[in-house]
Amino acid sequence: MPPKPVNQGQIDFWFDFLSPFGWFASLRLEEIAARHGRATEWHSMLLGVSVLKVMGLKPLLETPLKGDYLRTAAARYARRHELTFKTAKGVPPISPLPPARAFQWAKVHRPEIYKRFGADLYAAYWRDGRNIGDTEIIAEIGANHELDGQALTDAITSNEMRELLRGEVDASLDRGVFGSPFIIVDDEPFWGVGTLEELEAWLDGGGW
Amino acid sequence: MPPKPVNQGQIDFWFDFLSPFGWFASLRLEEIAARHGRATEWHSMLLGVSVLKVMGLKPLLETPLKGDYLRTAAARYARRHELTFKTAKGVPPISPLPPARAFQWAKVHRPEIYKRFGADLYAAYWRDGRNIGDTEIIAEIGANHELDGQALTDAITSNEMRELLRGEVDASLDRGVFGSPFIIVDDEPFWGVGTLEELEAWLDGGGW
Repeated sequence: MPPKPVNQGQIDFWFDFLSPFGWFASLRLEEIAARHGRATEWHSMLLGVSVLKVMGLKPLLETPLKGDYLRTAAARYARRHELTFKTAKGVPPISPLPPARAFQWAKVHRPEIYKRFGADLYAAYWRDGRNIGDTEIIAEIGANHELDGQALTDAITSNEMRELLRGEVDASLDRGVFGSPFIIVDDEPFWGVGTLEELEAWLDGGGW
Repeated sequence: MPPKPVNQGQIDFWFDFLSPFGWFASLRLEEIAARHGRATEWHSMLLGVSVLKVMGLKPLLETPLKGDYLRTAAARYARRHELTFKTAKGVPPISPLPPARAFQWAKVHRPEIYKRFGADLYAAYWRDGRNIGDTEIIAEIGANHELDGQALTDAITSNEMRELLRGEVDASLDRGVFGSPFIIVDDEPFWGVGTLEELEAWLDGGGW
């Protein structure tokens, strides 16, 4: 087979704010994409919907054996990559809906900064252990990007954003997305932060 | 932290003959271990027991979304690494018990060749699409290693091997093993063929 041409379509990146591995991937994705001349689009999704409702599985961290492994593996990843990381015990339990809806709102209304807003929400949670389920904290983070606090607050409970997020989650399921991080480029799916090397090799035009 | 000293304990490697990713890992493990001066021990386990009974999950390939992903990812891995690979549709459905018990017998009685016997069983299934649930085929593969065909045949249905394999599976669960491939070295667990790079970095004495 001839090598695949590089610099084709965009990289689609799905993540759940509750997923530390999604955060880890988000920290490397833009650099990887830029190095290969690819655009990215970030999509927030809800693991609870895909894992619980569609796959019929338990929440990952509550699954015997696997939950312990994922905690160990996340902490080890953070040490290896020298990340300040709160671990699942160090972050407040939150609903992922408020940050996901706020992110969705920024994506629609401030597309030029929505990824950085998402990155800041993510870091506030997993790096700083802040309660990003709290509307005031979301608004404070949004203010760093000159997002209108009232509009953001309204968006979190609006039917419009509820429907938009629901649509994003449905669309993710249609694409076969079931985990976080989940990346699709050139119709090739890559699940897990452990596949970033494989993704890079793909973007290098491996041809397989 | 100071870097961890290299060349410590052995690498424990768990696999299920039904797992193509376990096969992929087995093809690289010995070379990785040798390069880092580590011994290896291979352990056959039964994903059906851990995944179904302990974790309460569905079989992986029957799990919505994830099953499709794993099929795609396995085929892609094989293309990338230029492996002849039958895919899950190209291999006969088998019980993993006969090859696992035969492997267990070889491990006890012919420890100097048991890994190569396991490797040959694995290749017969995933590379050649042979029915390694069939006692005669197992005996034929064993003959290449001068394993006694009758002893091997008897072992597959013996209480002794049934108990020994059950003990290995229980031991794997005690170690937190829930997938294939699963590797533990220096008390650090590595799940999935995608973690082999991380394992290598660990063996290089990363110190994280």
